[in-house]
Amino acid sequence: MTQTNRQWIYARKPIAQVGPENFDLNEAAIPETKAGEVLVRTTLLSLDPASRAWMQGQTYRSMLNPGDVMAGWGIGEVLSSNAKGFEPGDLVSGEYGWQQYAAMPANALTKHDKAHKPEHILGVLGITGLTAYFGLLDVGKPRPGETVLVSGAGGAVGTIVGQIAKIMGCRVVGTAGGAEKCNWLVDELGFDAAIDYKSGNLYRAVKEACPNGIDVYFDNTGGEVLSAALSRMNLYGRVACCGAVSNYDTATPSPGPAGVPGFLVTKRIRMEGFVVMDFYNRKHEAEAALARWLQDGKLKAPVDVVEGFKKMPSALAGMFAGTNRGKLMVRV
Amino acid sequence: MTQTNRQWIYARKPIAQVGPENFDLNEAAIPETKAGEVLVRTTLLSLDPASRAWMQGQTYRSMLNPGDVMAGWGIGEVLSSNAKGFEPGDLVSGEYGWQQYAAMPANALTKHDKAHKPEHILGVLGITGLTAYFGLLDVGKPRPGETVLVSGAGGAVGTIVGQIAKIMGCRVVGTAGGAEKCNWLVDELGFDAAIDYKSGNLYRAVKEACPNGIDVYFDNTGGEVLSAALSRMNLYGRVACCGAVSNYDTATPSPGPAGVPGFLVTKRIRMEGFVVMDFYNRKHEAEAALARWLQDGKLKAPVDVVEGFKKMPSALAGMFAGTNRGKLMVRV
Repeated sequence: MTQTNRQWIYARKPIAQVGPENFDLNEAAIPETKAGEVLVRTTLLSLDPASRAWMQGQTYRSMLNPGDVMAGWGIGEVLSSNAKGFEPGDLVSGEYGWQQYAAMPANALTKHDKAHKPEHILGVLGITGLTAYFGLLDVGKPRPGETVLVSGAGGAVGTIVGQIAKIMGCRVVGTAGGAEKCNWLVDELGFDAAIDYKSGNLYRAVKEACPNGIDVYFDNTGGEVLSAALSRMNLYGRVACCGAVSNYDTATPSPGPAGVPGFLVTKRIRMEGFVVMDFYNRKHEAEAALARWLQDGKLKAPVDVVEGFKKMPSALAGMFAGTNRGKLMVRV
Repeated sequence: MTQTNRQWIYARKPIAQVGPENFDLNEAAIPETKAGEVLVRTTLLSLDPASRAWMQGQTYRSMLNPGDVMAGWGIGEVLSSNAKGFEPGDLVSGEYGWQQYAAMPANALTKHDKAHKPEHILGVLGITGLTAYFGLLDVGKPRPGETVLVSGAGGAVGTIVGQIAKIMGCRVVGTAGGAEKCNWLVDELGFDAAIDYKSGNLYRAVKEACPNGIDVYFDNTGGEVLSAALSRMNLYGRVACCGAVSNYDTATPSPGPAGVPGFLVTKRIRMEGFVVMDFYNRKHEAEAALARWLQDGKLKAPVDVVEGFKKMPSALAGMFAGTNRGKLMVRV
């Protein structure tokens, strides 16, 4: 055990793309626990597109301010406990921030069954999987035989959304950056088609990949893919708005989709934003379904694990450059 | 009775604003009725923002083509009947187009109780009122005490939406063009506040008029009012997309709202388009409610009747210039 707690401080607001220059490495003392708190050593830290949005302004959580420990979820091991119900050695998840140790109130921790892989707890059985599950099923409401388009399909949420839609009996099309990632979606994850949004005419590509139109669009990106999707939505189509990653990491967000509100009216489209926390009262339902699909081999949970706490800032930048496949996390 | 059927032909597609130059007056023979048809003399013809959209492209109906009789709904009197169930003198509504006589299949006509004023049948008890009723209540789902914002509030649908929202116990704010129309909304129709979208800073005006944010936004306009509304929507807010009149009568439609999809996600907003025809199976419910509110004096049905069939094109242009108050129609 080191004697210090290394932390990544969110130091400077990005002007455009986030990168290592926005963070400072800090060495703090290992925190002491107060009554009701638990000391956790972090082992896996999650990197999420939303991390970038937190730097930009208020979202579903308050904005991060320079000087704060960078925010984020992770998995860890209980080192010592000042709270009932937690013992050294317990496997726990929580919003630790980017640091090696965290003193957490017991009620901000979730204890996990060690039968599950930590990578799965942080990914497909955690916020990522729950986001995909509730966003697709409760907001998108796909029916068997319908066409589901998902953007950011190679990412943490997109890979799970596409596979759940296949389990539901839908035709599934994903957008991703680069031919290689597109092939991987089809060959490895069972997507029916994939569109490289970086190559050529996106509108035509969406039309060709979705010959019967789109019934459900799961939007991780906003921007041009959203505009193209709206142009091909079927009557009574549904757009589940999960995020707008195309607009997070840039100084020049794309204008709003030109099809709003025109296409919404003529095609009676429902477009609805959601945040996974709103579904936490039903998290056990989702966890059970996801774990069963994993166990039955119906669902793959691709993870992209970067080794080394020092690489957190560059790994975050890499996510916006599209280098990860599936759920991105750093082993501390 | 004249011996000819005067018609306005949709002659030339508008480049930007629609005007008399887009229509030609034609004199045709009074049509003969085939078996199952009814000859109607039109008495009141409706002018609707959607008329402009039909010229521009496919909407919820096929696009109009130059050479067609201009499309539109109206009220008329049965002159002769070749169909069971209709007698001369019956008061009937249908999609007659802009003409003095129409031979209509019986199943495309609705017979009305002469106890109602024809202006009400064409307005508050017709498509206009049904649009307001179902769009607000079924799509917007306002609850007592919530704040409802409606754009195009001085128009046919907007005047009814605002008053139904008041009946539902909401705080109601409207946007309209010009101080005079805004005063009329507050003084005559009971709106809690009105915003002149042509004067000054729209975002600030919306903020001031909606100090508790917006729970339901009934969007008749799209464009800048939609963007401003999204910026002030509350968590779990709803946007009922009825039309985009700001984009119909222009060569340069506004870009899509910048808050889409960002605000939809962070505020969990549901944005949903609708077309009144989808609710026709429940039209009697709406007609009964609207008629009762009218009778009880809870609902006013302002109508703006232009006298003279010749004025149809200029009346349509006037609607986009914002000269009408309430439901615009022409007495043939």
